[in-house]
Amino acid sequence: QQDTLQNTPKKERKWFQSISIGGYLQVRYNGLLETNRNLDCDQCDKAWGEGSNFSIRRARIVLSGQIHPQIYFYIQPDFASAVNGTKNFAQLRDAYFDIGVDKKNEFRFRIGQSKVPYSFENLQSSRNRLSLDRNDGTNSSFSNERDLGIHFMWAPTKRRELFKSLVADGLKGSGDYGVIALGIVNGQPLNTREMNDNKHVVFRAAYPFNIKNQTFEAGIQGYTGIYRMMDDDISAGVKHNGSLNYKDERVGITAVWYPKPFGIQAEYNIGRGPEFNKLTDSIETQNLSGGYVLLNYQLRLKEQLLIPFVKYKYYDGGKKFEQDARSYHLNEMEFGIEWQPWKHFELVVMYTMSERRYEDFTLRDNFQRGNVLRLQAQFMF
Amino acid sequence: QQDTLQNTPKKERKWFQSISIGGYLQVRYNGLLETNRNLDCDQCDKAWGEGSNFSIRRARIVLSGQIHPQIYFYIQPDFASAVNGTKNFAQLRDAYFDIGVDKKNEFRFRIGQSKVPYSFENLQSSRNRLSLDRNDGTNSSFSNERDLGIHFMWAPTKRRELFKSLVADGLKGSGDYGVIALGIVNGQPLNTREMNDNKHVVFRAAYPFNIKNQTFEAGIQGYTGIYRMMDDDISAGVKHNGSLNYKDERVGITAVWYPKPFGIQAEYNIGRGPEFNKLTDSIETQNLSGGYVLLNYQLRLKEQLLIPFVKYKYYDGGKKFEQDARSYHLNEMEFGIEWQPWKHFELVVMYTMSERRYEDFTLRDNFQRGNVLRLQAQFMF
Amino acid sequence: QQDTLQNTPKKERKWFQSISIGGYLQVRYNGLLETNRNLDCDQCDKAWGEGSNFSIRRARIVLSGQIHPQIYFYIQPDFASAVNGTKNFAQLRDAYFDIGVDKKNEFRFRIGQSKVPYSFENLQSSRNRLSLDRNDGTNSSFSNERDLGIHFMWAPTKRRELFKSLVADGLKGSGDYGVIALGIVNGQPLNTREMNDNKHVVFRAAYPFNIKNQTFEAGIQGYTGIYRMMDDDISAGVKHNGSLNYKDERVGITAVWYPKPFGIQAEYNIGRGPEFNKLTDSIETQNLSGGYVLLNYQLRLKEQLLIPFVKYKYYDGGKKFEQDARSYHLNEMEFGIEWQPWKHFELVVMYTMSERRYEDFTLRDNFQRGNVLRLQAQFMF
Repeated sequence: QQDTLQNTPKKERKWFQSISIGGYLQVRYNGLLETNRNLDCDQCDKAWGEGSNFSIRRARIVLSGQIHPQIYFYIQPDFASAVNGTKNFAQLRDAYFDIGVDKKNEFRFRIGQSKVPYSFENLQSSRNRLSLDRNDGTNSSFSNERDLGIHFMWAPTKRRELFKSLVADGLKGSGDYGVIALGIVNGQPLNTREMNDNKHVVFRAAYPFNIKNQTFEAGIQGYTGIYRMMDDDISAGVKHNGSLNYKDERVGITAVWYPKPFGIQAEYNIGRGPEFNKLTDSIETQNLSGGYVLLNYQLRLKEQLLIPFVKYKYYDGGKKFEQDARSYHLNEMEFGIEWQPWKHFELVVMYTMSERRYEDFTLRDNFQRGNVLRLQAQFMF
Repeated sequence: QQDTLQNTPKKERKWFQSISIGGYLQVRYNGLLETNRNLDCDQCDKAWGEGSNFSIRRARIVLSGQIHPQIYFYIQPDFASAVNGTKNFAQLRDAYFDIGVDKKNEFRFRIGQSKVPYSFENLQSSRNRLSLDRNDGTNSSFSNERDLGIHFMWAPTKRRELFKSLVADGLKGSGDYGVIALGIVNGQPLNTREMNDNKHVVFRAAYPFNIKNQTFEAGIQGYTGIYRMMDDDISAGVKHNGSLNYKDERVGITAVWYPKPFGIQAEYNIGRGPEFNKLTDSIETQNLSGGYVLLNYQLRLKEQLLIPFVKYKYYDGGKKFEQDARSYHLNEMEFGIEWQPWKHFELVVMYTMSERRYEDFTLRDNFQRGNVLRLQAQFMF
Repeated sequence: QQDTLQNTPKKERKWFQSISIGGYLQVRYNGLLETNRNLDCDQCDKAWGEGSNFSIRRARIVLSGQIHPQIYFYIQPDFASAVNGTKNFAQLRDAYFDIGVDKKNEFRFRIGQSKVPYSFENLQSSRNRLSLDRNDGTNSSFSNERDLGIHFMWAPTKRRELFKSLVADGLKGSGDYGVIALGIVNGQPLNTREMNDNKHVVFRAAYPFNIKNQTFEAGIQGYTGIYRMMDDDISAGVKHNGSLNYKDERVGITAVWYPKPFGIQAEYNIGRGPEFNKLTDSIETQNLSGGYVLLNYQLRLKEQLLIPFVKYKYYDGGKKFEQDARSYHLNEMEFGIEWQPWKHFELVVMYTMSERRYEDFTLRDNFQRGNVLRLQAQFMF
């Protein structure tokens, strides 16, 4: 340090030059103009259906960095995780590192806890998503979109740059999970222990490309594995297959027309998995299908950005992470607008019109229909 | 980065220039010269009354920054939060951002989880407070002094600077919650869900000013709302009003004569809220009142600082956050001294003489009197 | 800030110059070639014995810094702590600050939660340890190797530099806990409350020294105290001494021949503590003894490092932190190799051959023998 002025041989990087810290915070006000308080969606937002309330949906702090030309890391706890009904404890979402195989990191291995490369909307960060919740159709695949394991990813440098710019330029891309990704993960809910020796195997191919001024992305994805129902999710009296191990597999397609300024985003997936059957009082392997279509328009007013959007969601199938692999059939329509007065702050107003049938051993014949207005203020740093 | 010396167009700030990290740690040794082990104070310090022990009272890490001329954020988890008797988990205390309405941020909205602008001592950071615990009188208003919602604050630049200097100069000010603050919050215990549609509304006016070499501050504050008793806080057999919703409102006054070198600080508040009545075995809306007077003297010995202090506390009323809205009647006297050998480290020795009656459905006829000596080592970074 | 170019009086350090952030992440794959699934070791790795699975063993983030010439701090939460079976919550491991008595910090007090200076392997960071788990013999002394209290440490500057270089140079030293350390701590499991007024007192002397090109270290250590068995650890029906307070004391020796390139590390300790006796169905104060020998060889291949190692472990005694102070008798042999392709990343493959008898009130006559292969990928930043 003393003689840095003369013959500095190879200046050492300080910790804050190779590690960076950022994050975001989502504060919501739910329950405005609510027509049916019995209508809720646990996977979407636990504070929906609790009447009018302020809530913190996400409080994320990210440590990340390219700490070596071939090593990148990303650690993201969420500070809005609940324990036994008490809120806002810190719990890991991501904790992984990428090891580049080649010098350009076109081939890389990801080790640790990460989003599973399945579904564009799952991979898109919540800080970029327009609608307040992900769609039930593809989001019912992996709890919190994540799992623990190893992934192999490949993307040529040019595509990596395009993946990056689709986020950096405010086009709300998915981030870079490779043009090709192949993963092997535990296959149980995030932040719980593995319950069977079977691993889930997942595959995704996604290709973004420019045509004139417009950008498109097409994707396919699939996974297969054996999901072991959690003991706590089995109601006393419900029938099941004994081992609690159920086939769990899906395939899906993605089509994105990025908003320059008008955009369309659509995904659909089909598959099979555990689902409660109220006619037989049992958990059975059944078919599932679902997806969404999102239309949006980016309106730039000087520094400010206004994005009106419409989203339609559909899902028919079980949710393996819920009580008795709760059976769902839903149609939902959302109308919203996102306003970004500055790049660090955005406000979303969203009106939902929903029809949801969701049933388990206790909650039988549960069809809920209703409308609700929700607000979100989001801060990013 | 290379050519910063010539024609720098608009130098981008690095993350560590707009975000800063700090915090503090409080380690205590309780139970010295303890005359009555049945005397404790859950809201003050859960380790008081557990005999002689080392404990971590607070382990705070703060991320904050003026990330945009009109956006400031503050995220503070506490790493000494307990879950089911296991200690030292990370849980949010603060998570908010301030959006300036005008360029000078004299008018601003605060969104998220923050201290509620009620009571000077509540707002004063624990790292600055002389006595180890806050007074029961005003601190029984909001659990952990905080809640989730939106606040509007106003203060002219000159007062903002004075608020800031009263902390920076070691005078142990409250920080800047505006000369005028108006807030709307859930009104339930911190880090729990909202339980009724009613919101608490809070108002505060505080005005610090200089007269010759001395600095004074006067304040008034009040709030009103409906508090919903938590189900877990209701003993089997206790009578209540059925809905568990109780009126909860207060008004209070504050007077501070800042220590240059002699200081006085006093607050008092009155109001009504739920309180256990042992004569009827029921939780009823009852009157409450309480406050404190603190005398202190700042003795500077070269780089070091010595601050002897005396504090008298009084409270008569219920504590809505405790079992059956536990009924309290207390008188407490504290004698202490704070020693700051360096600005990063301070040591407090405090002797407490206490008389506390606190009773609920199970803990009937519970009057405890006793003395105890406690030590705290505090480190700030 | 404006006029830093002329007459800078005393340049203020920025927060990121006095505080630094780092950490490490350990991702494991357990259960390869497993011959006996009933064989596990709770203290070693809870994911061992759960079949084939990915798990995060440690996810550590460290904030530390010499914030003043005589004040150093260290705060380390682990983001892989479980609560009621749900994983990956953030919980404190370390939270302490060192106050130097003299200007050179040769004499210092440590206040807060820290590793207890007992056993070289306990003090050695998991990021440096070769084998995946610590040895049961000395690691059964303090849960998570840590406790809350005050320590006094002394080491002359020259030894402090040697302690430091033994870590920095990749020789996997213990870090600097003084040549002499004397501590007083609660004596209960980490992150739980003190249960009796008795404090544990601990002493350690360790002396590293060079002979020609080789480096050696010799150490002795001991502690004494009264451990209060935790109520949750007492099975219904088991007999005990009523107060649940048991004598808990040990002495141990350490010998290290640092790997330049061949190394040997050995420790052994004896003592007494609570232990379940299946003949009388009771928890009794009994003798204990155990330790290990580790052989290793550092093979440098250009930038890369390969370290094959063999470790033998033995323990006979109770584990006070487990159910009924579970009784252990074990012999274990480990063969492994650590590969560091870059200094930020290492991979360990370890094959274990184990014989473990561990018994409590419920788990009677439980002798397990088996082999298993485990992998660990570790990333450091």
